[in-house]
Amino acid sequence: MKIALVGIGKIARDQHVPALEASPDWELAATVSRHGTVEGVESFTAPAAMLDARPDIGTVSLCLPPLPRYAVAEAVLRAGRHLMLEKPPGATLAEVHALCDLADRQGVTIYATWHSRMAMAVAAAKDWLAGKTVREGRITWREDVRKWHPGQDWIFAAGGMGVFDPGINALSILTEILPEPVRLLAADLDFPANRQAPIAARLRFSRGVEADFDFRQEGPQTWDMEFQTDAGRMALRMGGNRLEIDGRHRQGADDIMGEYPALYARMARLVSDGKSDTDLAPMVLVADAFTLGRRNTVADFQF
Amino acid sequence: MKIALVGIGKIARDQHVPALEASPDWELAATVSRHGTVEGVESFTAPAAMLDARPDIGTVSLCLPPLPRYAVAEAVLRAGRHLMLEKPPGATLAEVHALCDLADRQGVTIYATWHSRMAMAVAAAKDWLAGKTVREGRITWREDVRKWHPGQDWIFAAGGMGVFDPGINALSILTEILPEPVRLLAADLDFPANRQAPIAARLRFSRGVEADFDFRQEGPQTWDMEFQTDAGRMALRMGGNRLEIDGRHRQGADDIMGEYPALYARMARLVSDGKSDTDLAPMVLVADAFTLGRRNTVADFQF
Repeated sequence: MKIALVGIGKIARDQHVPALEASPDWELAATVSRHGTVEGVESFTAPAAMLDARPDIGTVSLCLPPLPRYAVAEAVLRAGRHLMLEKPPGATLAEVHALCDLADRQGVTIYATWHSRMAMAVAAAKDWLAGKTVREGRITWREDVRKWHPGQDWIFAAGGMGVFDPGINALSILTEILPEPVRLLAADLDFPANRQAPIAARLRFSRGVEADFDFRQEGPQTWDMEFQTDAGRMALRMGGNRLEIDGRHRQGADDIMGEYPALYARMARLVSDGKSDTDLAPMVLVADAFTLGRRNTVADFQF
Repeated sequence: MKIALVGIGKIARDQHVPALEASPDWELAATVSRHGTVEGVESFTAPAAMLDARPDIGTVSLCLPPLPRYAVAEAVLRAGRHLMLEKPPGATLAEVHALCDLADRQGVTIYATWHSRMAMAVAAAKDWLAGKTVREGRITWREDVRKWHPGQDWIFAAGGMGVFDPGINALSILTEILPEPVRLLAADLDFPANRQAPIAARLRFSRGVEADFDFRQEGPQTWDMEFQTDAGRMALRMGGNRLEIDGRHRQGADDIMGEYPALYARMARLVSDGKSDTDLAPMVLVADAFTLGRRNTVADFQF
C-alpha cells in the first residue's frame, strides 16, 4: 500500500522513514514538507498539492507538531484518505473528536498512535498486571529538553504541552497496562516565568499512583515506572523496554527501534480490516492535569 | 419515585428543593448534608448512612462542588442507585468517564445535567439555527463572583474552575444549539496573582465564534450570545431565556425558574426509559482551554 509522510523533521528521519523503508506493508510514495525531502521519493511542499496529484496514495501519516496538525488532518480525511497521527493526536480534545467523527462519516481509518505502547516490554507488563491489584505506583520520567528538542520553542508555547510532550508517553503506557483506569486527583505544574507550558509536573492519581515529570534532567535519562501489587513488584524501565519482576530482569533490552515499525504494521492491519484506533485516555489525563493543576512559577528557561 | 438530595447549600435551597416540591414525578425522601436540612424530610449527615438506611430511595441527586463529588457519586452507583449530577459533572474528565462506565456496569441511569440548556429560549434557538451556516458568534458572559459565590474560596482553588464555573453554562448552550461542533483555537486566561483559577478568559473557536468570560462585572450582569448566519442575526440573551431574530424579540422572558423543574422531569424520563445522558462536550471545551490557554497574571482578588 502506498503512503505519504507529511512533516519531514527529526522524528520523521529518525523513526518514520526507516520504519517505512523496512516495512513489508508500505511503500513511501510521497513526502510533504516545506524544507525536508527523502531521496528517491516524490516531494511536495503543500498537502493539497500532494492529495490532488497522487490519488493513488490511500494513506497519509502526519509528523507535525500538534498546533498546525488539524488543518492538514482534516484535508486528508476530506480527500478520503486513511490517516495516521503522531502523538499527541491534536492540540485539543475537541479537535480530535471532530477528526474521529469525520473519519467515521468518510468511511476511512484513523489511527491515533502512541509509540511508547509498542515498546518491547509493554505487552508483557500488561499481561503480568492482569488480574492483580495495584497498591502503589511511581512513574519517573525525566529527560533533557535541550537534547531531545534543541531550540524547539514551540514546545514551551501555549498548547505546546511542555513536559507533557514526553510525559504523555508515560501516560500512554500507564493507561495501556493497568487492569483498571486511574483518575487524576491532584497536580503541581511548574511553569518557567518566561514560558507558557510547564517544564516539570508532579501528578497524583487514584490507586496510589504518582508521576514525576521533569524536562531539566542532564546526564542519564530516566523513563521508569514501578508498581507494588498484591502479588509482587513490577518495574518497567527504559521507556517500557525492560521488565523486571521482584527486582529480576524478565524481558526486553535498552532498545526503542521496534516502536515505529510496530505502529506501521498496526496501521496496515487497521486499514485492511476497515477499523480505527483512537484511544484518547492519555490525552484526557493531560487535559485533566492542566484543568486541575496548581501552577507554580519557576526560573526562566532558555535553550 | 423517591429521591435523595446530597449537599444542602445555596443551589439546593434556591433551585433543587423547590423544583422537587413542585414535581409530579418525584418525592424528596431524604437529604444528606453536614449542616443543612429540609423541614419535614429525613436528614442524614453521611451518604453511606442514607444509602444503608433507605433502600427504598432509588435515585440520588448531587449538589456538591466538583472536587468532593466523585467519592459520593461512586458510592451511589455502587449501591445500585440512579445518579443525577449538578454541572460540571466532575473535577476531571477521567473521573466522569469512570462514573459513566460504572453506571453502565451497574445498569443504572446517570444524568450529567446542564441547567442552562433548559433555559426558556434554548430549544427555539437550536431550531432556528438548524440548517443555517454560522459565520460569526460572540458570547459575553460577565457576572459578579461576589454576588453569586460570596466568600466561596473553593471556586478560585486549583480545580475550582474560576470563571469557567459560569462560563461552562454558556458553553453548554453553545454545544447544544450549534448545527456543527466548534473547536477551541486559542485562549487567554487571566489568573489573579493570589489565586489558582482564572477570573477572566477570552476564547477563540472555529466557525468565527468568540467568548468573553469575566467574573468581575459589577452592576448589570450579562449572559448574551449573538450569531451572524447566512440567513440573519440571532441573539440569545439572559442566559438563554430570551431569543431575538434580526433585532426583534421572538420568544422568552427574563426568567430562570423553569430550568431545574425541566432537569428533574428529564431525569424521571431517563429513569423510566432505562437510559443515560452524559454529554461532556462543554467540559471538553473547558479542559481544552486550560490545556491550550495562555496564562496572564492579573491583580490579586479578595472577596
